[in-house]
Amino acid sequence: MGEKEDRAIVLLSGGIDSCVTASIAKKEYREVFSLSFFYGQKHSREIESAKKISKWLHLREHRIIELDASLFSSSSLVSRNKEIPKRELEEISRDIPSTYVPARNVIFLSYALAYADLIGASSILIGANAVDYSGYPDCRPDFIEAFQRVADTGTKSGIEGRKIKIEAPLISMTKGQIIRKGIELRSPLHLTWSCYEGKEKACGRCDSCLLRLKGFKEAGYADPLEYETLPPWYRKEDLMGLPVF
Amino acid sequence: MGEKEDRAIVLLSGGIDSCVTASIAKKEYREVFSLSFFYGQKHSREIESAKKISKWLHLREHRIIELDASLFSSSSLVSRNKEIPKRELEEISRDIPSTYVPARNVIFLSYALAYADLIGASSILIGANAVDYSGYPDCRPDFIEAFQRVADTGTKSGIEGRKIKIEAPLISMTKGQIIRKGIELRSPLHLTWSCYEGKEKACGRCDSCLLRLKGFKEAGYADPLEYETLPPWYRKEDLMGLPVF
Repeated sequence: MGEKEDRAIVLLSGGIDSCVTASIAKKEYREVFSLSFFYGQKHSREIESAKKISKWLHLREHRIIELDASLFSSSSLVSRNKEIPKRELEEISRDIPSTYVPARNVIFLSYALAYADLIGASSILIGANAVDYSGYPDCRPDFIEAFQRVADTGTKSGIEGRKIKIEAPLISMTKGQIIRKGIELRSPLHLTWSCYEGKEKACGRCDSCLLRLKGFKEAGYADPLEYETLPPWYRKEDLMGLPVF
Repeated sequence: MGEKEDRAIVLLSGGIDSCVTASIAKKEYREVFSLSFFYGQKHSREIESAKKISKWLHLREHRIIELDASLFSSSSLVSRNKEIPKRELEEISRDIPSTYVPARNVIFLSYALAYADLIGASSILIGANAVDYSGYPDCRPDFIEAFQRVADTGTKSGIEGRKIKIEAPLISMTKGQIIRKGIELRSPLHLTWSCYEGKEKACGRCDSCLLRLKGFKEAGYADPLEYETLPPWYRKEDLMGLPVF
């Protein structure tokens, strides 16, 4: 194994995928900077998780960017007039869900480019994952490739030959594989938050809770979070506890 | 000439290029929406111009997005500790100037994508221009092409086959050609603001003033703005007045 590369930025939402991505970044880069966004979500529990994860992993800096959310009103994650869908696992299709936030990852990555230009980072890591979230267009491999070209052509670093790599290390992993990877890296999965609702306990019924629980089941570990309700196919008693950190 | 296309978004900074681009959009699209950004510039005169231009052109809607400017502190347009350079026209090189705002057009276009997804626009027009501003990486044709791929792959509209076109109609025009185009289209050039300083009169000494004055001289028209000082090579008395609107 060669020397660690210098500086990387990780997009840190506070969920499982970005937490594991941050642990990967921490392993591969000498200094890791994290970037989170508040964009009018109905709650800020994810941001709280992102803060805790950044602290736990001793990241060099955690920046939280507040986005003007007026353009995101079509999303049920943002609009107070729209219900977050509750449905069965089988009903989560490859269609674009109502939780879709227009061009979200495009905007996140654009800010990350500005940040990379500012601090001289050589990589931006994003926890995009095309397997379980294939309904979101900006989580797919061809989007990541397209954005790489934007980084190469549209920034000072890019045109001066200091390439900013866009890395999506989880892009073709299942949620179960991501969780196993996280456990292997001793990633602080117990600090993550996935539920689209921001209540005391995770709801256990939104798409995000269901995909997370499915992932833990697939990985063979029990989710350390507390849930309001659990789907019948998830039985904590059949699963291992997370290793103690 | 065919039917006008339906809806377009124009990025409207309030300068000459975006004003002429808005006039082009107005000619080609039935409904034009404009998008401006406040990103911590030392003044907001450009935004005031953008408002006036939107009103003059009867644009359907003008949205102003306030960006978190903390990532732009390297730019002399934003940082109060950095002087905006004053120099001669010949000194404006192809190097990236201190006024460079990291990934600015990437961020602007990303928001425009979200907006286009929201209102169902088929085009985004940007006044990027590679001739006089070749120092800015995100004003060049290969960047615009790269961003087109991002639009095609990273948005709901794009993957559902309702392409969002990224158009940069001025990309290979000189400032003089842009001004002539603006006069031909009866674009409200008298409402524009270009000066990097936000004083009562334009300074006449920053890069932006110099390139603007050079453009008016090249076009053969007198700039309708008032200047604090004028470079010796610009002689208003040799130039025509703008046509009356």
